[in-house]
Order: sequence, then C-alpha cells, then structure tokens
Amino acid sequence: MRALNWNGRELNLDPAYPTPEADDLSSLLRVRFAGICSTDLQILRGYMGFRGVLGHELVGDVVEGPGELVGKRVVSEINFACRRCEFCAQGLDRHCRERRVMGILGADGSFAEYVAVPAENLHPVPDGVSDEEAVFTEPLAAAFEILEQVQVGVGDDVIVIGDGKLGLLCAQVLRLTGARVSVVGKHAKKLALLRRLLIQTHLLPDWKPRQADVVVEATGSKEGLKMAMEAVRPRGTVVLKSTVAESHSLSLAPLVINEVTVVGSRCGPFPPALQALAEKSITVTPLIEKVYSLGEGIEAVAHASRPGTLKVLLRA
Amino acid sequence: MRALNWNGRELNLDPAYPTPEADDLSSLLRVRFAGICSTDLQILRGYMGFRGVLGHELVGDVVEGPGELVGKRVVSEINFACRRCEFCAQGLDRHCRERRVMGILGADGSFAEYVAVPAENLHPVPDGVSDEEAVFTEPLAAAFEILEQVQVGVGDDVIVIGDGKLGLLCAQVLRLTGARVSVVGKHAKKLALLRRLLIQTHLLPDWKPRQADVVVEATGSKEGLKMAMEAVRPRGTVVLKSTVAESHSLSLAPLVINEVTVVGSRCGPFPPALQALAEKSITVTPLIEKVYSLGEGIEAVAHASRPGTLKVLLRA
Repeated sequence: MRALNWNGRELNLDPAYPTPEADDLSSLLRVRFAGICSTDLQILRGYMGFRGVLGHELVGDVVEGPGELVGKRVVSEINFACRRCEFCAQGLDRHCRERRVMGILGADGSFAEYVAVPAENLHPVPDGVSDEEAVFTEPLAAAFEILEQVQVGVGDDVIVIGDGKLGLLCAQVLRLTGARVSVVGKHAKKLALLRRLLIQTHLLPDWKPRQADVVVEATGSKEGLKMAMEAVRPRGTVVLKSTVAESHSLSLAPLVINEVTVVGSRCGPFPPALQALAEKSITVTPLIEKVYSLGEGIEAVAHASRPGTLKVLLRA
Repeated sequence: MRALNWNGRELNLDPAYPTPEADDLSSLLRVRFAGICSTDLQILRGYMGFRGVLGHELVGDVVEGPGELVGKRVVSEINFACRRCEFCAQGLDRHCRERRVMGILGADGSFAEYVAVPAENLHPVPDGVSDEEAVFTEPLAAAFEILEQVQVGVGDDVIVIGDGKLGLLCAQVLRLTGARVSVVGKHAKKLALLRRLLIQTHLLPDWKPRQADVVVEATGSKEGLKMAMEAVRPRGTVVLKSTVAESHSLSLAPLVINEVTVVGSRCGPFPPALQALAEKSITVTPLIEKVYSLGEGIEAVAHASRPGTLKVLLRA
C-alpha cells in the first residue's frame, strides 16, 4: 500500500509499504481521511524517536477484523493498551505502561491507505457526521479531556492562549459549559473564525493578561506557559496542552506564591466528541485549510508545517 | 528596640531600630521566639527585594492593641490583607492583591524585640503548647495547606522529597490522613528523626523513583521538580512547596504526557496547626537545631545557612 513513512531522517511516500493485517484482536481500516497534527510535525523534528507510518487522526472503514463493526465507518482511539497493567486495571488505559500509540509510539499510523488498530479502540461514526467532521474526533476528544480533568462551569472566566487548531477546539468545548471564554492569539484570520461563533478574542500583542479562573495553554510554544502564568488568578488553574519537548527555562516561584494548579492534559474521551459533532454543537469544518490526496502527502506535510496553518487533511 | 535589619546589602543587629506601635487595627507583640526559615535565607540572596526586619515565624505576647488578646500568648498569620479586594472578598485573604507579608513584603518581621501585626491575624496559643512548639505554627500551617488543596487519604501512596524542616513537617501532616508516606532525603540524621516517628525513609542516592499518587516537592532546590516528576504516577499530583526564585530549565512534556497535576502550595491555615500541636499529633521540638539569643542573631542566621541545618530559633 501507499504510506507516508518516516525513517528518522526523511519522510517518504512509500508506494509499497507492507499492508497491515487484521487478527483476533485488531481490525484493518481503509483510511478515508487523516488529519495532520502538530505532534506529527514535532515527530519530524525528533520527538518520541518514532519511526514508521505517521498519523493518528483518521476516519475510515472497517474492512476486516473481529466484532460487529466490519463494513462500518469508524474513528479510532490512538492509545493501544495492554489491558493487563495497573493503569489499565484502573480504567486509565490511555496511560497504560505498555501502550503503543498510533503514529507516535511503536505502532504505524494513519497516513496510509490502511491501518490496523485494536478492535476495542473503534467508535462508529454517527450518520449525520461527515468524513471531514469525523476526522476531527481525536483532537476534539483532546479538548474534551479538559472537562474530564478540571471543573469548569457557568460564569467561570476562561482564557485559551493559542489560536491554533487545538486552541480553536478547546475554546468551543469550554464554551459548552457556560463559562465566559476568550481566546488570545496571533492570527486575525483564525480569531475571526471564533468571533463568528460569538467567542471573544484578543489579537496579540494587544492584550493585557487578566486574572482568569482557568487558562488553557495551547500555543505549542515554549512561551505559552509563562503567558498562562501571567493570565491566571491566584488559586486558579492552568491547563497545559502543548507537549513542548524542548526544555523551558522558567521561574516557578509565581506558581507557588499564587498557589496555581497546572494540569497536564493529553488525549481525551471519544464519546463526547462524537456526540458534539453529531449535535453540531462544535464547528470544525472551517478549521480545514486544505485537503491533499495521500499521493501529495509530502507537500501536505510541508503545507501543514508553515506557521499559522490550520488543519491540513489527507484523503487516502 | 533591637532588630535584625536587612538593608539589601548586609544584615545588621540594630540596637536602636524604631519600635513599632499598635493602633486601632494592629497589635504590638513582644516576641518570645522567632524561627529562621529558608525563605529568610533566600531574601538575603535578593528574593522579593525585601528591606527591613526579617522573620515571619514567631510566638509572643500581645502587649498593646485592640480586642481581647492583650496579655495573651499568641502566634500571628503572616499575610496582612486589605480586606477590600476581590480575593479578600472570596476569603482568599492569603492571596490579597494588596497584601503585605511579615518580614517578606512591605512589613517588618519577627527578628526583633517587638513586631506589629493586624489584630485579626492573631491566634491564642493553647496552654499545653510550649513556646518552642508554638513557634512552629507558621511552617506547620504551610504543611497543612497541602490538605486544603489536595485530597489525600487512607492508603494513598505519598512521597515527600526533601528532608528539610518543611519536608519533615509535611510528612507528619500527610501521615495524619492515613496515607502511606515515605520521605526521600540526603541526610541520615534527619531521616532518623522520621523513622523514630515510624515514617518510612529513603537515603539518596539509594532510591528508585516509584509511581506515587502524590509527591510533595520540599527540597528547596531547582532539582526537586524533576525528581518529583519522575516519582509521580500518570494522573498523579505533585505539590510544589519550594519557592525557587531562579529559573528552572526543564522539559514539561512528561507533565502533559502523563497528565500530572502540579499544585503550587504556600501559606496555610493556622487552626489545624495549633490543634495538632495541642493534641501532640505532630512532633516539632526534635527539629530544633539550636536556640540563639536575638543578640546572637547574625551568628544564628549564619548557622541556619549551613546546608543541612534544621530549625534555628531566636529567643528575643
């Protein structure tokens, strides 16, 4: 099959990558769409030391495998858990000690014609959700993760720092709670998308940090945490969404003095994300910057790497 | 009066420092004992830019002022709040925007014969609590602050990193919850104090980080947070107690990947600390390394500055 393969030095469109196989526990999916995420771009800079087929966002069809989903359109969770370790036993399978992660750690990903995933990772896509919407399920689930970790409610003052893909999703999810949400970003065009959804925005550098109850750091940059610390009130909460692999240099004294809580937040639950897409309570398609064919994958990744780019999709 | 005065360059024992005065809102205390804290030593290295009489731990007698405590033996909370700002209105007076902090920010401290504090900051000391115990109320309250911020309970696996004064108090407080507490430190002598209290200890470097539910970072050093991150389980909590003013250089990716919560923790509630001292559920006097007279204050601070020193007290 065709696949975008990262060998640690270069990304190649391999025309004859071995097609994965289904077995008793795993299903073979024919990919419809895959989404390019900032994490993919970080991997190309060495993050996680990953080698293999990139990609962890997808919608596809089950072509083979156990269970009742064969023939169905599905999305797949990305953490492949052992189901045996202490974390799996506690229901924390996204934190499984032995986990493989699609396109990130020890498992080939979705920038290919086919991908094999554990059958238990699959969720059928409701009929009213288009392919172009469904491919956002994984990053949208990551935004819903915030609500699994932090109590946010009516009237809370919430700031999202970062107007990238994840920031735009986080802002919409947080708004569902009835919180007062505003987004701080660098890109007038992206902030305009939010204003159309009646979410308040601030274009940098014209922004004075105020003392918010909850600040979501979704900048993907080293500077994000410092900004978040300036924007949160004493005893408030900073949600850290960016996996910035480089070292920060930062004084954490303000965190102690102001008794701030910093919550690291990664992958999230798929069911509320699919439900929100089905109910149209979250708007994702305006976030699509461009759709490329899998054959144009190298070009697509180059496009996605340009600063300020929103979601680039691959049609497999 | 005599006072240990820090002018930003040197610490002087001033024999004729102006004696503070009581007024409608503030009481004048005659200091019995004051404790030297690591924060005092940080101030001498420039922290907070403080100038004036150092010291924020004390037990003393109310000699003048409003209210019914005149003539009583008391301890004093260290944050002097405005009682008008939004944080005071929420009961977060320890985070008052306009606060002064005794011996740390805009208010003279306890390394003196007398100190003036807001009358509402005072707590009478129960009869069964000695002066040498009562002077630990402030740091012990800081240890109790952890229980105000984080849920810790029976069977939880808790690691305290750091066997300094604060670490020894935190370990004892956390143990009150029924958690399994162990302390990691560098000093066999201090760890022995804990073992006498039947608290498990690990002497560095002979320690393998395990995956604890809660890790309290009380090392007072830049390396503490990194160690804490290695010792906490996914979705676990790190309580950051050290106000390390210098910048850390640290990758926070593990915090995001493991969805760790980091809670900054500073000053705490006095009532449970005084109650624990009265009930003898916390042992503090073995933490006293040496008692100096106020006249020997310079020598006392030099002693407290030696690495590995436990609590040095000043008798005023």
